[in-house]
Amino acid sequence: MKLTPPYALFLGDATDTLGLKMANSIATWRKHQCIGEISLPECTVTTGLPQLSVNKAAELGAKTFVLGFNNAGGHIDAKYIPEIKIAIQQGLNIVNGLHDKLTDIPELVTLANQHNVDLIDIRHPTTRFKTANGEKRTGKRLLTVGTDCSVGKMYTTLAIHTALQARQINSTFRATGQCGILIAGEGVAVDCVVADFISGAVEALTPNNDDAHWDIIEGQGSLFQPAYAGVTLGLIHGAQPDALVLCHILQRDKMRGMPSYALPDIHDAIELNLRHARLTNPGCQIVGISINTSAVDDITAKETCLQIAKQTGLPCQDPIRHGVTQIVDQLVTLYSD
Amino acid sequence: MKLTPPYALFLGDATDTLGLKMANSIATWRKHQCIGEISLPECTVTTGLPQLSVNKAAELGAKTFVLGFNNAGGHIDAKYIPEIKIAIQQGLNIVNGLHDKLTDIPELVTLANQHNVDLIDIRHPTTRFKTANGEKRTGKRLLTVGTDCSVGKMYTTLAIHTALQARQINSTFRATGQCGILIAGEGVAVDCVVADFISGAVEALTPNNDDAHWDIIEGQGSLFQPAYAGVTLGLIHGAQPDALVLCHILQRDKMRGMPSYALPDIHDAIELNLRHARLTNPGCQIVGISINTSAVDDITAKETCLQIAKQTGLPCQDPIRHGVTQIVDQLVTLYSD
Repeated sequence: MKLTPPYALFLGDATDTLGLKMANSIATWRKHQCIGEISLPECTVTTGLPQLSVNKAAELGAKTFVLGFNNAGGHIDAKYIPEIKIAIQQGLNIVNGLHDKLTDIPELVTLANQHNVDLIDIRHPTTRFKTANGEKRTGKRLLTVGTDCSVGKMYTTLAIHTALQARQINSTFRATGQCGILIAGEGVAVDCVVADFISGAVEALTPNNDDAHWDIIEGQGSLFQPAYAGVTLGLIHGAQPDALVLCHILQRDKMRGMPSYALPDIHDAIELNLRHARLTNPGCQIVGISINTSAVDDITAKETCLQIAKQTGLPCQDPIRHGVTQIVDQLVTLYSD
Repeated sequence: MKLTPPYALFLGDATDTLGLKMANSIATWRKHQCIGEISLPECTVTTGLPQLSVNKAAELGAKTFVLGFNNAGGHIDAKYIPEIKIAIQQGLNIVNGLHDKLTDIPELVTLANQHNVDLIDIRHPTTRFKTANGEKRTGKRLLTVGTDCSVGKMYTTLAIHTALQARQINSTFRATGQCGILIAGEGVAVDCVVADFISGAVEALTPNNDDAHWDIIEGQGSLFQPAYAGVTLGLIHGAQPDALVLCHILQRDKMRGMPSYALPDIHDAIELNLRHARLTNPGCQIVGISINTSAVDDITAKETCLQIAKQTGLPCQDPIRHGVTQIVDQLVTLYSD
């Protein structure tokens, strides 16, 4: 799955910022690849990018029109169609992050063929993957894992990748979710792959590489998430990680969307993730803990990270508040030979 | 996914018994639902059922024509088409266990519509599942888990279900793979579900039930199988099992298809499966070990089972050689209230 920037971000009729996760991700991490945003009159939220019409975005050089929002049910509402049609007529490829498929709408398929543009349903991978073979690959890999969904795995992964680049260490960000794919311009939405091929898709995503090269792989879900743990385990096995970073969030009592499930203890999460990772890479080590401290003040954030660092013997940082220097130091120290 | 017996089993051009797994499963477990088998001249294997033509099978009352074999690549060869067409013209539904889809072949779709029969691609579930909610369901559930793939989970599950029926204990066999689905006449091929919905599909497969009712759920893969462990974990979480039975095979050195991976220790397998199962059902217990002893003689089989029973403190039996009486006794003892 390869995408072509620059992007025009379509926000549809979104009215809450959570629904804008995809547009906001790309606006945060690849702002220079974003021409601007396009909204319907009902839309009450913004990414902060310039507000444009589709025609204006095309005139300014946009190559891809991104449905960068979500709604209940993930459906493509009839009111989105006119803007999508203008984008196709302007020669833009269309990337769709909703569950419903553009390719199920005959009038869009016909129009896209006429204008020779791609309709890319990012949640529906069309690649036919192989099942995993479990064979050891060359190159090094870091994977983020989490105590829950939505704790900051993608942000942490991107921050570590950026820090490695700054140190002239050869690395590639490997996207496994739709926001990450939009940022990287490629990747595999592993939660959308047929179950038999989860690990195989990740093996294909992070192939053999130079011995000193790092794939920095975006994690998904959590081994402790009753709905999605299968995706997480398949991703861990396929990634064959040399290094793990555990991501956690403060003051979330219950697993996301699961009122009967508490978040796991950090020590348990480390131990269980390492145990599974060591099936396909016996040398795997944990190199740090990334904490989303957004629920507390600066002082509490700092104190909590220090405390967890002391308890675990691992660097512990909030990548937004504190950066990831200590975590990357640990990685470099452990793996420089 | 619901199927209509009796079945006519099509063996295609199969030349090894491993490729007949699906046909043999149904011929073993639901012989009275099988009218006979149909083979191409190249076919060198048999289920032992009477050999018939498609027309004869229809005349004898077959309602469903089953492509019950596999080949390298799982493709629908052109030479299978004439027999499939006769079956459709005779008004039989077609069930296909190959990877390729009947519904991708326009001439079959057209013919099936004309004759008002169903084309059922058993590896491609068409149901739209929800993601799991993790909420505790009523009724009781037993799940088989394994040290590897193909160690006897389906056989064990069916044997336990049959034994419960014989004791007048209300139970339902819940199929999670294509052979099981054919035997049960319904089920979900969980390895064919989109990754996000593995646990949700299992929740839907084993819904709320009477407090004393047992769902006896067919396991898939193994937490220690680098290719398929994600499916296994999603199945464990969605099943919310009250009871586990661990299935193992003697004298297999390496995980199936994975020459670099050894089979896990039985104690490790028990501990890790229980740990994950207790996320969604904290009361889960292991009630027995089922061993495929086909690689050894009767005396060694008996001695090995006794030894494992002693080491683990659990009933240990080969369901084919010894039955499952002790395992079912343990289940009944633990859960009779």
